[in-house]
Amino acid sequence: MREVFHKYRDIEIRAPRGTALNAKSWLCEAPLRLLMNNLDPEVAENPKELVVYGGIGRAARNWECFDRIVECLKNLEEDETLLIQSGKPVGVFRTQRDAPRVLIANSNLVPHWATWEHFHELDARGLAMFGQMTAGSWIYIGSQGIVQGTFETFVEAGRQHYGGDLRGRWLLSAGLGGMGGAQPLAATLAGASALLVECQQSRIDFRLKTGYLDEQARDLDDALARIARYRGAGRAVSVGLCANAADILPELVRRGVRPDLVTDQTSAHDPLNGYLPRGWSWVEYRERASRSPAATVAAVKRSIAEHVQAMLAFHELGVPVFDYGNNIRQMAKDEGVENAFDFPGFVPAYIRPLFCRGIGPFRWVALSGEAEDIHRTDAKVKELIPDDPHLHRWLDMARERICFQGLPARICWVGLGQRARLGLAFNEMVRRGELKAPVVIGRDHLDSGSVASPNRETEAMRDGSDAVSDWPLLNALLNTASGATWVSLHHGGGVGMGYSQHAGVAIVCDGTDEAAARIARVLHNDPASGVMRHADAGYSEAIACARERGLKLPMLGDA
Amino acid sequence: MREVFHKYRDIEIRAPRGTALNAKSWLCEAPLRLLMNNLDPEVAENPKELVVYGGIGRAARNWECFDRIVECLKNLEEDETLLIQSGKPVGVFRTQRDAPRVLIANSNLVPHWATWEHFHELDARGLAMFGQMTAGSWIYIGSQGIVQGTFETFVEAGRQHYGGDLRGRWLLSAGLGGMGGAQPLAATLAGASALLVECQQSRIDFRLKTGYLDEQARDLDDALARIARYRGAGRAVSVGLCANAADILPELVRRGVRPDLVTDQTSAHDPLNGYLPRGWSWVEYRERASRSPAATVAAVKRSIAEHVQAMLAFHELGVPVFDYGNNIRQMAKDEGVENAFDFPGFVPAYIRPLFCRGIGPFRWVALSGEAEDIHRTDAKVKELIPDDPHLHRWLDMARERICFQGLPARICWVGLGQRARLGLAFNEMVRRGELKAPVVIGRDHLDSGSVASPNRETEAMRDGSDAVSDWPLLNALLNTASGATWVSLHHGGGVGMGYSQHAGVAIVCDGTDEAAARIARVLHNDPASGVMRHADAGYSEAIACARERGLKLPMLGDA
Ligand SMILES: NC(=O)c1ccc[n+]([C@@H]2O[C@H](COP(=O)([O-])OP(=O)(O)OC[C@H]3O[C@@H](n4cnc5c(N)ncnc54)[C@H](O)[C@@H]3O)[C@@H](O)[C@H]2O)c1
Ligand SMILES: NC(=O)c1ccc[n+]([C@@H]2O[C@H](COP(=O)([O-])OP(=O)(O)OC[C@H]3O[C@@H](n4cnc5c(N)ncnc54)[C@H](O)[C@@H]3O)[C@@H](O)[C@H]2O)c1
Repeated sequence: MREVFHKYRDIEIRAPRGTALNAKSWLCEAPLRLLMNNLDPEVAENPKELVVYGGIGRAARNWECFDRIVECLKNLEEDETLLIQSGKPVGVFRTQRDAPRVLIANSNLVPHWATWEHFHELDARGLAMFGQMTAGSWIYIGSQGIVQGTFETFVEAGRQHYGGDLRGRWLLSAGLGGMGGAQPLAATLAGASALLVECQQSRIDFRLKTGYLDEQARDLDDALARIARYRGAGRAVSVGLCANAADILPELVRRGVRPDLVTDQTSAHDPLNGYLPRGWSWVEYRERASRSPAATVAAVKRSIAEHVQAMLAFHELGVPVFDYGNNIRQMAKDEGVENAFDFPGFVPAYIRPLFCRGIGPFRWVALSGEAEDIHRTDAKVKELIPDDPHLHRWLDMARERICFQGLPARICWVGLGQRARLGLAFNEMVRRGELKAPVVIGRDHLDSGSVASPNRETEAMRDGSDAVSDWPLLNALLNTASGATWVSLHHGGGVGMGYSQHAGVAIVCDGTDEAAARIARVLHNDPASGVMRHADAGYSEAIACARERGLKLPMLGDA
Repeated sequence: MREVFHKYRDIEIRAPRGTALNAKSWLCEAPLRLLMNNLDPEVAENPKELVVYGGIGRAARNWECFDRIVECLKNLEEDETLLIQSGKPVGVFRTQRDAPRVLIANSNLVPHWATWEHFHELDARGLAMFGQMTAGSWIYIGSQGIVQGTFETFVEAGRQHYGGDLRGRWLLSAGLGGMGGAQPLAATLAGASALLVECQQSRIDFRLKTGYLDEQARDLDDALARIARYRGAGRAVSVGLCANAADILPELVRRGVRPDLVTDQTSAHDPLNGYLPRGWSWVEYRERASRSPAATVAAVKRSIAEHVQAMLAFHELGVPVFDYGNNIRQMAKDEGVENAFDFPGFVPAYIRPLFCRGIGPFRWVALSGEAEDIHRTDAKVKELIPDDPHLHRWLDMARERICFQGLPARICWVGLGQRARLGLAFNEMVRRGELKAPVVIGRDHLDSGSVASPNRETEAMRDGSDAVSDWPLLNALLNTASGATWVSLHHGGGVGMGYSQHAGVAIVCDGTDEAAARIARVLHNDPASGVMRHADAGYSEAIACARERGLKLPMLGDA
């Protein structure tokens, strides 16, 4: 008898809080709570369908798999490892105490078959799951996760294009989903106003409610009037507009409106699920996508092409335009927009210098569920990194402006050296009882050493090694060898099937000596592997960082 | 200053023998000796260019990398791990004693760029290396490595098509390279005569010298006359013919000759380097390949199409024909041979039932360099597995007919349960001084749980999951977590760029308790992950095996 599996369940999941264990150790309790936290209605975009963020990025393949993962984690011994294959728990093996408790591989396909078409075929047969980056690897923390990255990006863009001052400037973008929802807040934190086009009212409501978005305009005229007003007053306010970006951007080009920064965070990487074609309602889109997928994808791609053509028009006018990691240029190029790649991706434009020093989206979550635990760690970060005013400003703003979603968490871009120091300090705080319960540390897969994605993180590498994916695989193997608590290897995150391979890691600070030893290894080796990757590609900042931190990179010459 | 790297060096490498360590531990000495052994002139096809087997499967990216790997392994501490990225030593990290000493990722490319064209571009810039399966993961042991697999395949084919009796039958195949060179010996061991077409005289000479091939014919008429004679006499003799398979096979079809089994092991997976077009000399091929690669590939593919058309003609006549894992069908299909996949691959045809029980190409190498050590382990295998006459016959024939190449080694297809038992017994023999030095155990990447290759190992999986590559990634992560000595993740082995992802593992038996604990974990978990993969795909043999061996497979229903 073939079992029936369910992708929908009318249920609300919330991670357990407090100090009582549901599993046999904190090393198993942590992935259990984080899996559940990924599906908390405060955190996930569509939790009843197991969708966390980023199109159809799921936390488990179906609800039966979810149940079984929970059961496995509750019963897992301290020297056992659970294997997750595209959101399905496939095996429990005896390994070692200092090995990961969970090993995850999501959405990986042999390259020749690594297309959305084949993925959807497998998905329809219950054989696949799209893990995105932190959805299937259980370390998504809601929109905050991306806020600092987006903030850093806008700040750096401001530095490069507007002398570091974004006052009176405004950003034009679209998409207020799990990731994109961070844009309005990041823009205002960086000092700019923003106009965000989003086609689903529910998404706008969600961002208004959480304070990420300041207000909503009635229509385009109203939106432009508001922006003009705030610019004039030198105020940074974000304005949402419920409309289709493929209508609005070309219209703005026609009207000769000139934004100061243009980007996009619709889920263009996934034409079947994540981008609304012009002239359709969302309900119609979902319905047609399941009825006639090929025709739907064709319609989506036509709209994307028009959208990108408008972005190119802004680019030609000299407006700074960048691809924000949703593969929209590739989709347009496939549709015949030959010069789609004329504007850059955000990584080479703004982020790579950070990656060269192992700086990336470090984050941690308070398993206690207490906001106070995060506030204490915030203070600890300031204490240990006293000389970084930018970081302090971020922490202050985050505390003031960012609502926690699900388990309290903090993100904070720090690099090699700092990560291990913070991790050890947090572990010490747990040991001394300064925190109410253990903390789990993780990061996005979009990080220094953990991803190969030639249209995004590894676009335009100095040596041309954009597509070499040995690096994320080595990163995952090294983190496993170093004793991380869970490690994941995914394909297709961010930019969709065929375009990326990437690795995730999470590690628990339970206050023990064993944890301290693991933290020292993992939180050094993980960012160090990013410095190594960039040094190997010939970036002088990375080579300097490697020398300074005493990394052993055998082929690094003396030149 | 950009350094200059060399792919050619006029040198002969031979692994150190004996009990004196060159590295700081046997766990580092073993990969050191095995890397060198892969380049032993007795073992490698073209060692001066670092080519081990299978087209351009290399052990290191260039000679400078080789030197540096050797140096790193000599200096590696017992809690350090060396990272190898496409044959280049890129980092040394502190991990743990029970973690792997070496982690390897070779030839991995983000799917959209995972083509020979992009690979060659990277290769030309010194950024890539083709690792094949055991070439870049340092556990190739010469043609013996493949002899038993080939033998098992021919025996099983004989069982299915000729009632288990191959006397008076003959095999037609081509290619006497590193893998293909095993065909004549495996055929005669299985009781059949064989005609092997090989276009390079040097390869024929090498197989004659090592006793893998019995004799060479002057021309096709002579070859057919010899085959007819041996068939008549009921003798199993192998005959080599120096010619182009793309000439010979169509000619045999024209003449109405009817072999009893047809296959092929030219390196058709790599048209730029591994398959000679009709009418060209080998020297001309190499020269043109470097001068005008695209035109060369086009000529190769035309010849492959004619070759496959002849194979299809035999298939239509009812002759058992199978693809022997060199992707020749795909190449022909790309060239317009629509029905190229009419004949099956060897895995679904003959090997999968073994994989369902975790049975695969288990192998071990005597680090002492003493043949006697292998003979003692042979005896131990017989002692521990007394009730398997087929296995005993293999061991007897192997001892009698197979010359060791490089360090003495043995291959022996055994499964879940047996592998760990043998490994622990070998470790015990080392401890007790029954062997002169430690032994290293490994396997091919072509194994039960370690590969996704839809045109070969995972062709026609029961549930349609051929292209899902989560499995080999989980296999590598699990072996790393279990404390294997070295672990590798490769792309493109066997069938070429874009068509496979696979993992390797090796573990040292140094006679210590620590080694015993690791062996028990690794040699259980590794084949168990293969049983898991096949059980998940719905094979009843695998489900039965999983139940019998008490595997914890969370979603395995009771049906
Ligand atoms: N830059 C980064 O750091 C980063 C990180 C992760 C993901 N991403 C990428 O950013 C994109 C967005 O991610 P997400 O998690 O927010 O996705 P999501 O699917 O949760 O949200 C996408 C939003 O776009 C809206 N939308 C779709 N089509 C539209 C249209 N034509 N006009 C206006 N709005 C439209 C949808 O209604 C939805 O709210 C994805 O492609 C993701 O892969 C970027
Ligand atoms: N079935 C398996 O278990 C298995 C395992 C590993 C590899 N393979 C595949 O088998 C193939 C052979 O592997 P190998 O290591 O022997 O490769 P190799 O490159 O060492 O040998 C190939 C041989 O084919 C000969 N050849 C090329 N074109 C020819 C032609 N037109 N006519 C006659 N001879 C020709 C070459 O001279 C060479 O000797 C590869 O594609 C490899 O990937 C199969």
